[in-house]
Amino acid sequence: METTQDRRIFIDRLSQFPDQEVLIRGWIHRLRTLAKTTFIIVRDCSGEAQCVAASETLKELRLKLEDAIEIRGAVRLDGRARRGFEVEASEVTLLNPCANNLPFNSSTSTDSVGLDTLLEFRPLGVRNDEIGNIFRIQAATLKYFREFLTNHRFTEIITSKIVAFGTEGGANLFEIKYFDRIAYLAQSPQFYKEHGVAGFERVFETGHVYRAEPHATSRHLTEYYSLDFELGFIDGPDDVIQVERELLTHIFERLNAECGEILEHYRNGPLPSMLHVPIWEFGKCLELLRDNFGRADLVDDLDPKGERQICQLAEQETGVAAVFVIGYPIGNRPFYTAPRGDGRTANSFDLLFQGLEITTGGQRLHRRSDLEAALRGRGLDPAKFEGHLKMFELGMPPHGGLAIGLERLTAQILGLSSVKQAVLYPRDRYRTTP
Amino acid sequence: METTQDRRIFIDRLSQFPDQEVLIRGWIHRLRTLAKTTFIIVRDCSGEAQCVAASETLKELRLKLEDAIEIRGAVRLDGRARRGFEVEASEVTLLNPCANNLPFNSSTSTDSVGLDTLLEFRPLGVRNDEIGNIFRIQAATLKYFREFLTNHRFTEIITSKIVAFGTEGGANLFEIKYFDRIAYLAQSPQFYKEHGVAGFERVFETGHVYRAEPHATSRHLTEYYSLDFELGFIDGPDDVIQVERELLTHIFERLNAECGEILEHYRNGPLPSMLHVPIWEFGKCLELLRDNFGRADLVDDLDPKGERQICQLAEQETGVAAVFVIGYPIGNRPFYTAPRGDGRTANSFDLLFQGLEITTGGQRLHRRSDLEAALRGRGLDPAKFEGHLKMFELGMPPHGGLAIGLERLTAQILGLSSVKQAVLYPRDRYRTTP
Repeated sequence: METTQDRRIFIDRLSQFPDQEVLIRGWIHRLRTLAKTTFIIVRDCSGEAQCVAASETLKELRLKLEDAIEIRGAVRLDGRARRGFEVEASEVTLLNPCANNLPFNSSTSTDSVGLDTLLEFRPLGVRNDEIGNIFRIQAATLKYFREFLTNHRFTEIITSKIVAFGTEGGANLFEIKYFDRIAYLAQSPQFYKEHGVAGFERVFETGHVYRAEPHATSRHLTEYYSLDFELGFIDGPDDVIQVERELLTHIFERLNAECGEILEHYRNGPLPSMLHVPIWEFGKCLELLRDNFGRADLVDDLDPKGERQICQLAEQETGVAAVFVIGYPIGNRPFYTAPRGDGRTANSFDLLFQGLEITTGGQRLHRRSDLEAALRGRGLDPAKFEGHLKMFELGMPPHGGLAIGLERLTAQILGLSSVKQAVLYPRDRYRTTP
Repeated sequence: METTQDRRIFIDRLSQFPDQEVLIRGWIHRLRTLAKTTFIIVRDCSGEAQCVAASETLKELRLKLEDAIEIRGAVRLDGRARRGFEVEASEVTLLNPCANNLPFNSSTSTDSVGLDTLLEFRPLGVRNDEIGNIFRIQAATLKYFREFLTNHRFTEIITSKIVAFGTEGGANLFEIKYFDRIAYLAQSPQFYKEHGVAGFERVFETGHVYRAEPHATSRHLTEYYSLDFELGFIDGPDDVIQVERELLTHIFERLNAECGEILEHYRNGPLPSMLHVPIWEFGKCLELLRDNFGRADLVDDLDPKGERQICQLAEQETGVAAVFVIGYPIGNRPFYTAPRGDGRTANSFDLLFQGLEITTGGQRLHRRSDLEAALRGRGLDPAKFEGHLKMFELGMPPHGGLAIGLERLTAQILGLSSVKQAVLYPRDRYRTTP
């Protein structure tokens, strides 16, 4: 359909049209005006090209950085130009000018620009590769997540985010005014993905979840994007861990191969293989922290500092700063968690990666009677969970799964200091715009 | 990692283990108990296998349809069995029994089962192929949607569903109690995807959107899954239409190739090529409806019946029951719609497919001054849209895009009578569970 005369050509295809007349469109990424000649670096979604024009012909356009423009011109092979060619512009059209006095632009460093300003000028921010590439990596991560699971017999499901009650008993739920009653925003697709196992055996979902977290830290968002999977007919939590090892290794290998150039700007060295990430007992972790760091303050959970310390020890031992921690006290885990033989610890785990917990998962209870007992043990009334419990009478197999926070995973892949840098439009205690 | 001794084998791999001992897990899909021998059809996510066991050995298990079981046995090649082999069971273990007296099961027709019952027993419903395959087709549709756009330079974005105000002025919004203030559930990612164009040039998003629709018809949901894309540097709405023609053709070709067997159960003949779906003027459509169906009642929009009639005419003309209708009166379109030269009609379109509108799209206004004028023309105060309008001063190119309702698309692909059949957990005026 595309003709070189009438239709716009993507910049990464220009070298296929030597000495031909082409039409390109994009933003002014750099601009250098000399007395006779003006050099315009134009950028579109495919790349950058240097265009040259007689300065005289551009005067009235008052071109500036970030303007949206169209250039008609001829492709000239030129060894001096960065890509081996440049475009000799015969006609430059201003499609839409940019405002004056922007706080930053797409070709300069955004290191000193604060998050508020980056959000206020979001489109300009993401036009800058330092920011935009975070979201390209995020999109690629999401693609490889779905790719791996689809290739391993998982069915993608879409479940409702409007629910009649919470999965974990009711704290930190956002209320929705739902016509003449109250509903809530889903905290997790946990129940639905378990039901999905009873239907499809293996399911995954990628979607938003909501937590009315009253505190605003660099690690907390009220809305985040959860990568969930759940699978049936497992022997124990190790089956879930093994899927995650292979899944993350797939994602990381694909990122290294397809986005290596971007990754280099953010981290030292490629992403590691996760195939041999060890599984450490929670009890052992407490001992290690006591012995290596003098931590005597931790009892039934790790704190952020402890997570970093454990990753440091894992890196010393395996070369990869990652470890699955299993066997937390059962009381700290949700009611649907399967206990281990001792009854006191849980068959659930966290994955700590480069100092941050990026996954919680494990084996779940799969018998109605066990779930009822677990609810009662926490002072919850099984009758209120009848709609959920009923699904366990439909041939629910032993099953387990996990959830990965996409923003946390993105932040750890790229070494970002705040999870908010990995969200296009973050939501927290105080922020509902842009 | 898998060993035939200890680890469960997926059913579709069984024929690779002739005369070997295997372990399989799944649900009892069919069960036939004779005096000496019992035939169990076991199903897992990969397929079905016939297992035979001595009836005597199974007595105490009281096996029934839908139980989750594990079978250890030997694979015997057998010409009489459907797949050329069967499993001679040596040990059958009940992993989790199913309740008695279920209203339907996974191997019988669900035609006479109502939606309420299907939802009440959702996992069992989707274990039945008649229902489960709807969602397999939906998952595949979603996969091919993302695949096409990713291959055509679109970047996937994730945008917030918690917004401070609506994109279209405020009607039909669900209120969220957001700490000490009110926020809303997003009706569409419209503003964000336009901002995305100014950042990435081409973006897509797949995610939930929310409409507080007070009426409960077979076509309305309060929560649905929207497939959105938006692209910059277009010449007009035809560029958007052309992307949709190629996108849907890609999805349909992939579905025909990969899911042909499933499609056969739902529709006569494969999905059509959409490459030559025509573009009809809204005015012409009114004339056609008058001339062919005596419809004189339609003035500024089509009704559901009119949509079906137009598709019928398109099918007579092109062989495909699909048509892009363009040039609706501008007053009926959202404020951001680009007008045509006449100022009275809109550069936006609907795609009607097999009698139902499945897409609304078009070119958008890209200059701040035009948007301000359009807002004022509708009695809206531009100052209230300042956060949005500002983004149009960052070099916003001419752009357009569209949204496809995934449930509607799924329903039309499979010929379902209600869009609610294409949602795992539908939400409407009266329904927030399961």
